[in-house]
Amino acid sequence: MSDRERVLLTPGPLSTSRAVREAMLRDLGSRDVEFLAITARVRERLLALAGAEASHACVPLQGSGTFAVEAAIGTLVPADGQLLVASNGAYGRRMAAIAGRLGRPCSLLELPETSPVDPEAVARALAGPRPPSHLAVVHCETSTGIRNPLEAVAAVAARARVPLLVDAMSTFGALPVDARRTPFTALVASANKCLQGVPGVGFALVERTALAAARGRAPSLALDLFDQHEGFERTGQWRFTPPTHVVAALARALDELEAEGGVAARGRRYAESCRVLVAGMRKLGFETLLPDALQAPIIVTFLAPADPRFVFDAFYDGLRRRGFVIYPGKLSETPSFRIGCIGDVSSSDLERAVAAVAETLGELGVSSPGTS
Amino acid sequence: MSDRERVLLTPGPLSTSRAVREAMLRDLGSRDVEFLAITARVRERLLALAGAEASHACVPLQGSGTFAVEAAIGTLVPADGQLLVASNGAYGRRMAAIAGRLGRPCSLLELPETSPVDPEAVARALAGPRPPSHLAVVHCETSTGIRNPLEAVAAVAARARVPLLVDAMSTFGALPVDARRTPFTALVASANKCLQGVPGVGFALVERTALAAARGRAPSLALDLFDQHEGFERTGQWRFTPPTHVVAALARALDELEAEGGVAARGRRYAESCRVLVAGMRKLGFETLLPDALQAPIIVTFLAPADPRFVFDAFYDGLRRRGFVIYPGKLSETPSFRIGCIGDVSSSDLERAVAAVAETLGELGVSSPGTS
Repeated sequence: MSDRERVLLTPGPLSTSRAVREAMLRDLGSRDVEFLAITARVRERLLALAGAEASHACVPLQGSGTFAVEAAIGTLVPADGQLLVASNGAYGRRMAAIAGRLGRPCSLLELPETSPVDPEAVARALAGPRPPSHLAVVHCETSTGIRNPLEAVAAVAARARVPLLVDAMSTFGALPVDARRTPFTALVASANKCLQGVPGVGFALVERTALAAARGRAPSLALDLFDQHEGFERTGQWRFTPPTHVVAALARALDELEAEGGVAARGRRYAESCRVLVAGMRKLGFETLLPDALQAPIIVTFLAPADPRFVFDAFYDGLRRRGFVIYPGKLSETPSFRIGCIGDVSSSDLERAVAAVAETLGELGVSSPGTS
Repeated sequence: MSDRERVLLTPGPLSTSRAVREAMLRDLGSRDVEFLAITARVRERLLALAGAEASHACVPLQGSGTFAVEAAIGTLVPADGQLLVASNGAYGRRMAAIAGRLGRPCSLLELPETSPVDPEAVARALAGPRPPSHLAVVHCETSTGIRNPLEAVAAVAARARVPLLVDAMSTFGALPVDARRTPFTALVASANKCLQGVPGVGFALVERTALAAARGRAPSLALDLFDQHEGFERTGQWRFTPPTHVVAALARALDELEAEGGVAARGRRYAESCRVLVAGMRKLGFETLLPDALQAPIIVTFLAPADPRFVFDAFYDGLRRRGFVIYPGKLSETPSFRIGCIGDVSSSDLERAVAAVAETLGELGVSSPGTS
C-alpha cells in the first residue's frame, strides 16, 4: 500500500493494490484466447463466491454497477410485471426510478433511511391482493451504510415464490451470501467495491431458469442480460467491446481475495477498520447516523458538527491534503459526511485518518464536533 | 512500443502506448477535484477535435461504444420518430436493431457490404412522402473497412433538415470531421479506437439544441444522455461511477494525439500502415475485399485463400505465436479475415506482420493464397 498518494475512503472507486493496477499494463485482444480464458475464470469465480455454480449464471456487463442493475430489471421483470422495491435509501429509490424509465410498473415499500428493511412488512406486501411479480432490495444502502436483513427478506420472498433481485453492490466480496441458503433470482454487484477491482464492469448472478425465460424481453440491446449471457455461452466472447484492462484487474483482484482468505477474512478486515474508525471518531465527539447494530462494515455516515466553522468542502480539503479522500453525505435531510472502510485499506490507515480528522478540525477551529 | 508481447492488429481494443497504460496506475476518487478536472478537460478536447465547441456538448458514457450509440438513439429519436439507417454492414444493422429494441420505428436503406452509402439514394429517401425524423450512418463500417462519404451524407441531411446521427466509432481521431463543415446532430465514438485509449468509455458529441429538447425521452436511466449531460454541467461529476482509470488513460491518449500532430498526422500514419499492409499482402497473393478507393485506413478485409489448407484458426494461431493478433472476418457470406492498421502501431510493425503472414502460410502449407 506504499505507492498511494491518497487513500480513498469512499464507496468506490476505492484504493486498490498496486498489483491490481499493474494487471492493466497489458493490452489483450478482446477475442484472443488469453482474454477469453480470463473472462471464463472470472465468471466462474464470481459464481463460486456466492455458492451459485449449480443454479445461476454470471453475466458480466460493461459500465458501472447501475448499468447492471438496470439490465437485471429490464431483463427479468416483464412489461406486464410489477416490481416492489423494499427501500430505505437512494439506491432503493434508484431501482424504482430505473423501473419507471423502463416502463415496468413499480411500487416502493419505503422506510426511513435509518430503519432497516422490515421482512414482516415485506411479507405483508407480498401477501396482498395484488402481489408484485418481483421484489428488489439493496443489501447495504451505501447512501447511509445501513445493512439490510437480506437473509430474512430472501426467506420471505422464497415463501411467497416472488423472485428476488438483490443490489449487493457494496457488500459482495465482504458480507457472505450463499445462494443455497439465501435464495435470490438475481444478485448484482460490481468490480470496484469489496472485490477491490477497478471500476468499469458490473455483473449479475442470475438464476438459469429465470434467464432462459427472458429472451427478447429487455427493452435495450446493450443492457440485455439474456443476449449477453448467450454470447458468453456460445463463443466465450463479450457481445460488445469489453473493458479488457478492467477485467484483467478484476481477475487479479479475485486472486487477492482468495489469498486474503476469502469473503470471511475480508469481512473481518473491514469490520476491524470500521470499528477503529467509529471508535476514533466518537472519541473526537462525532456521532454516527446509525447504531452499531445496523451499521454495515462498508461505509459510515457521520453527522456534521453543528459548529458553523465546520464547512464540508474545507473539511474535505483538509483531509485530502493529509492524504485521505472521503465522501459527502447522501441523506435527504441531515447534513452529514461518509467515510468508507473498504478497499486495499487497513485499520492502521483508518487510525491515521482519524488523526487527520482531528488535525483538520483544529485547522478549521471546530473545537467540539458534538452536534448538539 | 518495446514492451509489447503482441501487437494487436484489431479494430480495438488495440495496442496502446506504455504511457497510456501507466496512466491507470493511480487510483483517483471519482468525485475528487483532480478527476473532475480530468473529465472536464477530456470533454473539452473531444469537442475541439470535431470543431464542435460552439454548437455541441460532449457527453461521455460508461461502457462500450455500442452503449453510447444506443444512448444517442434512445435520447434523440422520440418514440413517435422514425429512424432511417443508411447501412452497408453489421454496424449499420446494429443501429437498426437498437432502435427496434427501444421501440423506435426504424427502416434500413441497405446496400451491399462493398458499396459505400449513396448520398443520392439517401437524398431520395429523405424526400419521400413520409420522410424519417432522423438519419443514421456509420462513418467507417469496421465490419468491412469501407469508408462512407460522411461529408456528402451530412450535406444531404442538412438540406433536408433531418438530424444526422453518426457512428464514428472507428474513425474519430484519424479521419477528420468538423461540425462546422459537416453538420451532424450527434457523433458517437469511443476511447479505444483511433484515440488510442483503452476500452471502457464511449462518448457522444450532441448538438446542444437537440440535447435540450430531450429531457425524459430516453427509455433508460443509465443510457440517458440528457441526464448524463445535466450531471456534468451541474456538478462536473459523472452520474454513476465512472471508469476512473480508463478516463485517465484517455486523457493521456489525447495528450499523445496532440503530440503526434493531431488528427491529420495520425491519419497519415494509419494510411501509411494501411498502404504497407495492403501492398505486402497483395505481394503474397492476397486479395482485398475492397478497391483502394473505398478502403478506410482503419482495418482491411482480406479474402480467405481458397486452398483448403488455409484454416482461419490455425492461421490466427500462427500469427499469434509470431506476435500479432488479427481479427476474424465479419462478412455475411465470403470467408475472410481482417487486419487492423490503428493503434500505437507503425508501418514497420505492419511490415513485420506481413512477414509473419508469409511464414505462417509456409507453416500451413498454403502455397498460393490466391483465391481463384
